[in-house]
Amino acid sequence: MIVKMVQINTSPEEKKYKIELQYQGTNYRGWQIQPHQVTIQETVSNALSRLAGIRIPVTGAGRTDSGVHAIQQVAHFHFPDKESVPDLKRALNAVLPWDIRVVDLAEVPGSFHARKSALKKRYDYRFYTGEVFPPFLHNLALHLNHGFRLKPAEKAASYLDGTHDFSAFTGAGSSVEDRVRTVSFSGFIKKGSDLTYRIEANGFLLYMVRNIVGTLIDVGCGRIEASDIPSILASLDRNQAGPTAPPQGLYLARIWYEDISIKS
Amino acid sequence: MIVKMVQINTSPEEKKYKIELQYQGTNYRGWQIQPHQVTIQETVSNALSRLAGIRIPVTGAGRTDSGVHAIQQVAHFHFPDKESVPDLKRALNAVLPWDIRVVDLAEVPGSFHARKSALKKRYDYRFYTGEVFPPFLHNLALHLNHGFRLKPAEKAASYLDGTHDFSAFTGAGSSVEDRVRTVSFSGFIKKGSDLTYRIEANGFLLYMVRNIVGTLIDVGCGRIEASDIPSILASLDRNQAGPTAPPQGLYLARIWYEDISIKS
Repeated sequence: MIVKMVQINTSPEEKKYKIELQYQGTNYRGWQIQPHQVTIQETVSNALSRLAGIRIPVTGAGRTDSGVHAIQQVAHFHFPDKESVPDLKRALNAVLPWDIRVVDLAEVPGSFHARKSALKKRYDYRFYTGEVFPPFLHNLALHLNHGFRLKPAEKAASYLDGTHDFSAFTGAGSSVEDRVRTVSFSGFIKKGSDLTYRIEANGFLLYMVRNIVGTLIDVGCGRIEASDIPSILASLDRNQAGPTAPPQGLYLARIWYEDISIKS
Repeated sequence: MIVKMVQINTSPEEKKYKIELQYQGTNYRGWQIQPHQVTIQETVSNALSRLAGIRIPVTGAGRTDSGVHAIQQVAHFHFPDKESVPDLKRALNAVLPWDIRVVDLAEVPGSFHARKSALKKRYDYRFYTGEVFPPFLHNLALHLNHGFRLKPAEKAASYLDGTHDFSAFTGAGSSVEDRVRTVSFSGFIKKGSDLTYRIEANGFLLYMVRNIVGTLIDVGCGRIEASDIPSILASLDRNQAGPTAPPQGLYLARIWYEDISIKS
């Protein structure tokens, strides 16, 4: 659905909202609006625009790649003050397709910005380590069973904790100049055959999590030593790290903000 | 893929195998082979036939309806003695589509029969009771959030325990004469917003679990009293029970057999 821009409404009858979304990214070309592609940002913006009768742009906390999921993505938008928050949430879930859900909606102060106000983000990368991959995890996890050893991968993950220049783990095409990020958690969570790699940081570079995961898999499979991680980090060279892990195991899982006063 | 019947191999070079399957039923018209429909039984039979070079019929422990899943379905078949069990399992998983997986494969004595040797079966019906249905459970659970109360549904479920004539809970078209079954477990398992109704019995009638689940939902939503269940059972009348619950929450979860000597 294409909604033409008929009016940029900046009237005082507008309010600013923070939205928490959950989505399965399989059927989308990622978050970010792109010409001739179905994206999550566009789908949410179109749904809001349809309800408002005017074009409603949506600003996300960060991009997710094609095929990547979100347990919690956050965005903000301005919307005409014509419906209660519960009504708007319900209407939005009725208009959105099944694979994008509004988990929470709240009015926020004008100073709130989904990306700029974010303090920290969590990504989870989900593996299944059993012999036979359950059909119920199709597109939702990566199968990892060919001689992967958790111990060295855990050791490797621990080296990423702290403040580092993550140039070695970012996409070659990235134009971001400051590639220093502070990682406050980097580790694995195992529960039976389900294995999750979790990383929390104050910011993430393009492909950073998938490049880290690809490198950790290489370590677990014995292609790189865990003790190589510090020199890979220090090299600032993308070619020193492992391959980019596929998108279907990756979830944007949580975003932290300073306490914001929410009127509702 | 259609495999023509070229030979019924009953030579002594054949062995009998028990196969444990896991499947997501969404894309299939149930287990049972039907003309002009893609079914699980046909898909498994075709995969085995392709590997054997002759037609391999497959006998399942029981039918599952269109859209119903299996965590553990069991079947048996005869197969030429030309591959080791691990090789056959691997080859089969390579040939089968992602939504049907071979979890286990073992050689069994000639007396084993997937349906007739089964002592007991378990079905799980999976609900999500939170406000917003997670996209990751699409086609894998039923959303239950409009005033459903667990307490009365639990009470209702407990009345099904024991030996009863389940005529009131079987499809009108069922031709089975003996409708007495012994239920050894009937209850709910709650874990956060995930709720599972579990039933174990020595046998199940057509649509029995889905009709029971539809009735339990009616009780939880206050449309029937839990204390009505005994008279519904006694009526032997399908019209007294609730509607048939949709298939996507239902899983054939486990099948019990007497200890069988497995050569491998």
